[in-house]
Amino acid sequence: MTALLDRSMLALRKTHARPGLELCLHTPVPHVGPRDVLIAVTHAGICGTDRHIYEWDSWSANRVKVGITTGHEFVGRVIAKGDAVWRTQIGDRVSGEGHLGCGSCEPCRTGNAHICEHVDILGIDIDGCFAQYVTLPEENVWPIHKGIPDKIAAVFDPLGNAMHTVMAAGVSGRSVLITGVGIIGLMAVTIARAAGAGTILVTDVDSRRLAIAKELGADHTFEATDHTWPEQAKRLTHNQGPQVLLEMSGHQRAIQDGFSALRNGGTAALLGLPSGPTCLDLPNDIIFKGATVLGINGRKMYETWYQVESFLLAGRLDLDPIVTHEIPIEDYEKGFELMQSGQGIKIVMTLPPNGD
Amino acid sequence: MTALLDRSMLALRKTHARPGLELCLHTPVPHVGPRDVLIAVTHAGICGTDRHIYEWDSWSANRVKVGITTGHEFVGRVIAKGDAVWRTQIGDRVSGEGHLGCGSCEPCRTGNAHICEHVDILGIDIDGCFAQYVTLPEENVWPIHKGIPDKIAAVFDPLGNAMHTVMAAGVSGRSVLITGVGIIGLMAVTIARAAGAGTILVTDVDSRRLAIAKELGADHTFEATDHTWPEQAKRLTHNQGPQVLLEMSGHQRAIQDGFSALRNGGTAALLGLPSGPTCLDLPNDIIFKGATVLGINGRKMYETWYQVESFLLAGRLDLDPIVTHEIPIEDYEKGFELMQSGQGIKIVMTLPPNGD
Amino acid sequence: MTALLDRSMLALRKTHARPGLELCLHTPVPHVGPRDVLIAVTHAGICGTDRHIYEWDSWSANRVKVGITTGHEFVGRVIAKGDAVWRTQIGDRVSGEGHLGCGSCEPCRTGNAHICEHVDILGIDIDGCFAQYVTLPEENVWPIHKGIPDKIAAVFDPLGNAMHTVMAAGVSGRSVLITGVGIIGLMAVTIARAAGAGTILVTDVDSRRLAIAKELGADHTFEATDHTWPEQAKRLTHNQGPQVLLEMSGHQRAIQDGFSALRNGGTAALLGLPSGPTCLDLPNDIIFKGATVLGINGRKMYETWYQVESFLLAGRLDLDPIVTHEIPIEDYEKGFELMQSGQGIKIVMTLPPNGD
Amino acid sequence: MTALLDRSMLALRKTHARPGLELCLHTPVPHVGPRDVLIAVTHAGICGTDRHIYEWDSWSANRVKVGITTGHEFVGRVIAKGDAVWRTQIGDRVSGEGHLGCGSCEPCRTGNAHICEHVDILGIDIDGCFAQYVTLPEENVWPIHKGIPDKIAAVFDPLGNAMHTVMAAGVSGRSVLITGVGIIGLMAVTIARAAGAGTILVTDVDSRRLAIAKELGADHTFEATDHTWPEQAKRLTHNQGPQVLLEMSGHQRAIQDGFSALRNGGTAALLGLPSGPTCLDLPNDIIFKGATVLGINGRKMYETWYQVESFLLAGRLDLDPIVTHEIPIEDYEKGFELMQSGQGIKIVMTLPPNGD
Repeated sequence: MTALLDRSMLALRKTHARPGLELCLHTPVPHVGPRDVLIAVTHAGICGTDRHIYEWDSWSANRVKVGITTGHEFVGRVIAKGDAVWRTQIGDRVSGEGHLGCGSCEPCRTGNAHICEHVDILGIDIDGCFAQYVTLPEENVWPIHKGIPDKIAAVFDPLGNAMHTVMAAGVSGRSVLITGVGIIGLMAVTIARAAGAGTILVTDVDSRRLAIAKELGADHTFEATDHTWPEQAKRLTHNQGPQVLLEMSGHQRAIQDGFSALRNGGTAALLGLPSGPTCLDLPNDIIFKGATVLGINGRKMYETWYQVESFLLAGRLDLDPIVTHEIPIEDYEKGFELMQSGQGIKIVMTLPPNGD
Repeated sequence: MTALLDRSMLALRKTHARPGLELCLHTPVPHVGPRDVLIAVTHAGICGTDRHIYEWDSWSANRVKVGITTGHEFVGRVIAKGDAVWRTQIGDRVSGEGHLGCGSCEPCRTGNAHICEHVDILGIDIDGCFAQYVTLPEENVWPIHKGIPDKIAAVFDPLGNAMHTVMAAGVSGRSVLITGVGIIGLMAVTIARAAGAGTILVTDVDSRRLAIAKELGADHTFEATDHTWPEQAKRLTHNQGPQVLLEMSGHQRAIQDGFSALRNGGTAALLGLPSGPTCLDLPNDIIFKGATVLGINGRKMYETWYQVESFLLAGRLDLDPIVTHEIPIEDYEKGFELMQSGQGIKIVMTLPPNGD
Repeated sequence: MTALLDRSMLALRKTHARPGLELCLHTPVPHVGPRDVLIAVTHAGICGTDRHIYEWDSWSANRVKVGITTGHEFVGRVIAKGDAVWRTQIGDRVSGEGHLGCGSCEPCRTGNAHICEHVDILGIDIDGCFAQYVTLPEENVWPIHKGIPDKIAAVFDPLGNAMHTVMAAGVSGRSVLITGVGIIGLMAVTIARAAGAGTILVTDVDSRRLAIAKELGADHTFEATDHTWPEQAKRLTHNQGPQVLLEMSGHQRAIQDGFSALRNGGTAALLGLPSGPTCLDLPNDIIFKGATVLGINGRKMYETWYQVESFLLAGRLDLDPIVTHEIPIEDYEKGFELMQSGQGIKIVMTLPPNGD
Repeated sequence: MTALLDRSMLALRKTHARPGLELCLHTPVPHVGPRDVLIAVTHAGICGTDRHIYEWDSWSANRVKVGITTGHEFVGRVIAKGDAVWRTQIGDRVSGEGHLGCGSCEPCRTGNAHICEHVDILGIDIDGCFAQYVTLPEENVWPIHKGIPDKIAAVFDPLGNAMHTVMAAGVSGRSVLITGVGIIGLMAVTIARAAGAGTILVTDVDSRRLAIAKELGADHTFEATDHTWPEQAKRLTHNQGPQVLLEMSGHQRAIQDGFSALRNGGTAALLGLPSGPTCLDLPNDIIFKGATVLGINGRKMYETWYQVESFLLAGRLDLDPIVTHEIPIEDYEKGFELMQSGQGIKIVMTLPPNGD
């Protein structure tokens, strides 16, 4: 390990408080504590969050530490480990949970580390995986089954967001409305289909994404700008409205329309993050309806990870239309452009080996 | 029955589209269909809703039919029944569920008539129980156990609102915050205590009601105007916030403060009805918290009624500080005044017999 | 209606306390009470229970009233109705729930009539549907959507058993073991697949049925006589065992093997009825496992019926390999022979019109 | 730490494969790994399991390793820790979870370590806490709140068994039957009362324990030998039977009687361990009833521990009649005699300090 720690590595970092990232060639290899493993990253996915950091919007400027290595979706191989590491072996192919729970609060100690109050997030609070090496506590490491290809293993994190939302809401045998089919929304379509959803309805502003949603199993799609869609959604669900709302847009109007379409007694799972206050008609949207609303944060550790693995190994998910591009990290600017233009959906970057 | 139908009765009615009610002496006895029973009302509780109708606020003006007999909380005796009535006997002492489900929609046919989309409400959509006689479908009749006194039997309806909220949220072994202790909020305090709640925290604008809440089992109370209370609430619950929020005020600020106090992974049950849009910080109030939010409407038919009966017969509820006054219906104006002044909480009116 | 009641009808009845049934040509048309409808049956399914009654085994001899009209699975048209019937129209195409709850017990009044303690069952306690006419309380009538063909509408009852079992257990994203693929077990295979199950494992003594199970979506099948199957089942489910057991055989050995295969923390839903006591190793089968065991009785009224309708209308179920024969009621003996020989699975009988 | 490891300690050990235990004066202090803490035990509770080991029954002879230090209920102070320990401080007063999950199986990684398939149990598989020192992984350590006295802190483990059973079953507002009031059954009485149970019924063979159960909040008690008790239990619960069964006896007859008393739709939580096969009438006991049966193993890590702490700090539990004796470990034989004779219930032993 000594040799490694002396060596430097390539890393995509937020070096200045302005738009853009910098590909640094001589970043120090991260420290490995007694409970940590060091992973040589081979593939890393670009998240919508990374795009926010790249574009340096107001959220990023308030939340992200300048100087950090970005990225939190990845797969790689373990190449070093601390003395107290006990179940992970050098050479294991692994991904990892990017939310690092504090480990001692009530959520952490009751199997709910995804809602830890003191969480550190990879690539936001601590150095991330857009680099040749990343360090993670062994606790956060997820061994990747040999039946799962690298470019899918690299996106377990967002797949997990979608999975957690779908499974928390409970779609089996129920009609489902998905408002917003960005990357995670599209993943939710194929997951909902595999998880036994009844009629699947989808709305978005982007007609290309609606077409992909259909390909992935949506029964009906609506342009979000056609404000008659909640009425159409009701008509297509026995005049009662969908039983489940998966909110993945974070847009006030979509949230309001989604709630108004929701059936009495229905369940709304909220994943999309509005950037400001959201005004709801609580009596009609939630109270009189007897609705159940679930806030969805991250992935359950590690129930969600098992579910993702299980659906993948059973061959039930179709991710080909979603993971559209694989590019070398050196072309990261192209990656962000593909996302911005809408030509790409999920972009996976490959990392060059460092001679280990 | 013929004799009865020829007879007229005393009824407290909304005869004009303006504040006030009218005690009508010669109202026709209501019609009894083949599935209906006719009940001679002996006691009837005044609800906050009745006060809205009395005061003729904008909600009432938009919702309530002028000409209707008001009231929906009551106890009485069955004195006539239709031909297809089969389990109810003349002479039975009964109360009844004031939400009349349509009986044929999905909620009605799956044990969820409390969220029927086509519900008719006693005293709002159809003639109510502030009268010597009221008609109800047998389906809506609830036989009152002989161990339960009349003035308590008369308020099963609001007790049911409180019970449904508490039981839906699940308070057993969990810390509970109740925002707003009007009639139903106070009932929720004694129910939460009986149902096994841990620490019970209460906030309201009225210090007299806070004192009653303490008497009923609240561990700590906060003046709503002291905006440090969410912080205090956190401190009193292992620095994490209460695990359950029972929102019974309908006030935007209380709702916002309640959500901000709620523990990660907590449950919020919303019963109070805001009169306008409510603006929430969805990411921090619900999404990152992984909170569960439940809309609460009416009472479960008839699970909630069984629970109310069961807690009462086990002697676990203290309603004496809540049902403060029993007055003859002729003094109804005094009843509303007692509510308006805050001197009374739940007012029960007695109806004079009509010689049956 | 008078005309009808004077007329007699064809009915398949248990006229003697010995094997066999009798096709009676001049059975009186059943009485129609004020809340009842009279249905002209067009198609009726033969249940395993009917076969028990036909064969007059010890269960039947102890349970079934001699003189009764048999049958409880059907579809037909409403041709008469009582005075208090209010949502059903003459001419409606309907099936119906054969469990007649008492309507006044706690399960009945809380949406759980399927576990009413005083239930009457069509074709067992009261005259059934193997007849040109059957009477049912309107409450028990289920309107059949026009998109559903008669031979499927006729088997909503057993489909409902399978649906209730699958949905109560919760199969979405979980590996499932089905022990016993008689009629309902086979239905459970197609339903589990549609409801989002992961790996589906099936065991039975009959290799033909195992082949059909595969056709319907089972991933792996085991001959029940090969007692290594629980080990194989574990191996095929990440060495942990299936997460869900749907027990549909009622055989002690299958029950024991099923529990031994079940994963820690798994759910077992029991539908099959053992004919004697069942000996379990409670510590290892249930307690140390932290297993959840669910007793499944009938169908939820009417949540299960909505689910059946919903899956059918979405085109998610494959029942063609299950509903194998449609025969005239006059050939009922052939129907039972087809079941006994294993050549047929679900047999639907057609009833001749009676000139209405 | 070196000094400590050289020192020897007093420990109560199973030194021979025959009845009895041996108080060894020169047992080596246990090894402390990088993730472990070393705890100087001050108080330790004697469990029914310890009595089995003492008496060397057939279960013990098959399960327990000769040479082991016994005991798994305790409180003490941390006096040494491994290099990778990070949230525990020297001097902390702690108890600990005696089930050591493997940490890498699905239950362990999904917050369900209580049903780990590869668990090691303190005092059974590895050296336990009837000793001046015990080693535990930091993960298993539970910090004891200063408001909780030692003799209660020493019995968090069995309190946790009772708590897990009561909370898994869900007693709030429901009638409860407890079959068997040994130590954990008695704890379940006071917990059920605090957790909001309705009517509490208790049965046991020992009238002294029934008297204590009444003192702790049971409404009615039955001698188990009076086989009319299930009928009485029905009568006392609205003629329907209790809604919840907490089975804590492990006796076949009690289990059968308990199931027969259980209400349709009820929940049975099984904690008691029968020593052989248990024969059930599955159709009548579970299937037709639509019952839910839960296997209860250990305590949830660490949800149950939080619940125990929370109820204790709220002052809701009465344990004085249960923790009857506090004796020095040197008198351990008297402790077992007190249990055997029924004069004592929970016996807590104190450990002499070792000069640290």
